[in-house]
Amino acid sequence: MKNEVFDAIYKKLESEPYANKLGLKLINLDYGYSMVEMSVTEEMENMFGMAHGGAIFSLLDEAFEAASNSHGTISVALSMNVFYVKPPSIGDILYAEAKEMSKTKRIGNYDIKVRNNKGDLIAACQAMVYRKEEKLPFLN
Amino acid sequence: MKNEVFDAIYKKLESEPYANKLGLKLINLDYGYSMVEMSVTEEMENMFGMAHGGAIFSLLDEAFEAASNSHGTISVALSMNVFYVKPPSIGDILYAEAKEMSKTKRIGNYDIKVRNNKGDLIAACQAMVYRKEEKLPFLN
Amino acid sequence: MKNEVFDAIYKKLESEPYANKLGLKLINLDYGYSMVEMSVTEEMENMFGMAHGGAIFSLLDEAFEAASNSHGTISVALSMNVFYVKPPSIGDILYAEAKEMSKTKRIGNYDIKVRNNKGDLIAACQAMVYRKEEKLPFLN
Amino acid sequence: MKNEVFDAIYKKLESEPYANKLGLKLINLDYGYSMVEMSVTEEMENMFGMAHGGAIFSLLDEAFEAASNSHGTISVALSMNVFYVKPPSIGDILYAEAKEMSKTKRIGNYDIKVRNNKGDLIAACQAMVYRKEEKLPFLN
Repeated sequence: MKNEVFDAIYKKLESEPYANKLGLKLINLDYGYSMVEMSVTEEMENMFGMAHGGAIFSLLDEAFEAASNSHGTISVALSMNVFYVKPPSIGDILYAEAKEMSKTKRIGNYDIKVRNNKGDLIAACQAMVYRKEEKLPFLN
Repeated sequence: MKNEVFDAIYKKLESEPYANKLGLKLINLDYGYSMVEMSVTEEMENMFGMAHGGAIFSLLDEAFEAASNSHGTISVALSMNVFYVKPPSIGDILYAEAKEMSKTKRIGNYDIKVRNNKGDLIAACQAMVYRKEEKLPFLN
Repeated sequence: MKNEVFDAIYKKLESEPYANKLGLKLINLDYGYSMVEMSVTEEMENMFGMAHGGAIFSLLDEAFEAASNSHGTISVALSMNVFYVKPPSIGDILYAEAKEMSKTKRIGNYDIKVRNNKGDLIAACQAMVYRKEEKLPFLN
Repeated sequence: MKNEVFDAIYKKLESEPYANKLGLKLINLDYGYSMVEMSVTEEMENMFGMAHGGAIFSLLDEAFEAASNSHGTISVALSMNVFYVKPPSIGDILYAEAKEMSKTKRIGNYDIKVRNNKGDLIAACQAMVYRKEEKLPFLN
């Protein structure tokens, strides 16, 4: 079961349109856990020439998606709370790490941190999913 | 003053790299208020073929950026809390409307709603900025 | 149905231990809506002699509880995000108003605002419940 | 410096009106860290006979207050996001542990967890303060 679900998520996210648009790359996956990488490019600049909050959020949302679906059934995002701690620089490589805090039949809670390659905390997030009973549709 | 700041923000966001990447378009701006439009495209699909949460968030973050900087001084995002209410469909046109709830010397609070073209609520957000004293750097 | 559920909630909250401990009083109730009143007393002082954040939160949580259970079935709080806007003074009368933003079979989202008797915004909150199928246990 | 500030906070919270009202007891304090204890009593019951969300929040808010003021200067709560994970039982002893995630000149971010005496996660919270320059007013 483990390899099957994890392999399917890795494969699916490699061809995920939004992941490809932003250069999001899943680099670690386990039950209730994931790490996703993104390089901050000039295409992500906001009106101040800094990384747009939407890009940083997209990175941590991808980690959330991977971790919360790692149990093989569909998870739907309900609530996310992000604190922006330190603005990254263009050219930085960022890592989002999602960890499951709790899981019941219907609800899962996640802690997600974004750090740069020096280990500085960039953003902190709490996120919640509704857990459906259906299996991931792209499993065989 | 009004026209100068608003004109500068409109112009700046028209050429904002991240806005162009996602097709975010500022269509209304006032003091503490903005509306931004985005079409949900296939490039924004997540692993379920639905609009990625990161794309929806980027839309509301753009409205937040415009509204919170409309007073002419630099605002920095501190905290955002998003509730995902209803998943939009690919092809939908979404509108994010940001309204200022309160503003003190240092802190501004915003309510941001994302709706589709039928008026359905897609996402609701509370967001907070730190207000610096410096003028927007792209004002003349 | 309407009178029965509303009457039961009014009656139940009048004798709710925590409401009585803090002086929380339901003064308005409708489907997905409520208003609750609380006087800020010296017993609520924090270490700075101001109203404790926990007391202000308890007020808005009571409004959330009333509004989210107004449909007659049990609602369970999942997520709450509060922004503290302006500290109230000891002696102020505060009003929390909860409004339903959206409701699906399983999830309900609420907007809750706390204001003082001059209409100043004291705190803003977004809150989410999980909606069970069971009726409120204290209905006949 | 350390003993002076910590001693002052311990002493101040021992006589804090709201802490006494709810039986909140500071049991551990360090720079950016605190642990606070509370027994869930029948006085805290909500309309379902369970612990009121406001009481649980008050506990974690007390830990937040202690940890964020531990540096000796005044901190003001800006934003708190709480996820309710598991309802405690009447009679449970709960512990809130606050840890500083980050601290800049003006902003501090905290992670706060509430657990019962069996170690079960009851609630998770992210919280943010604005850091003033003034010293705590009750320091000598």
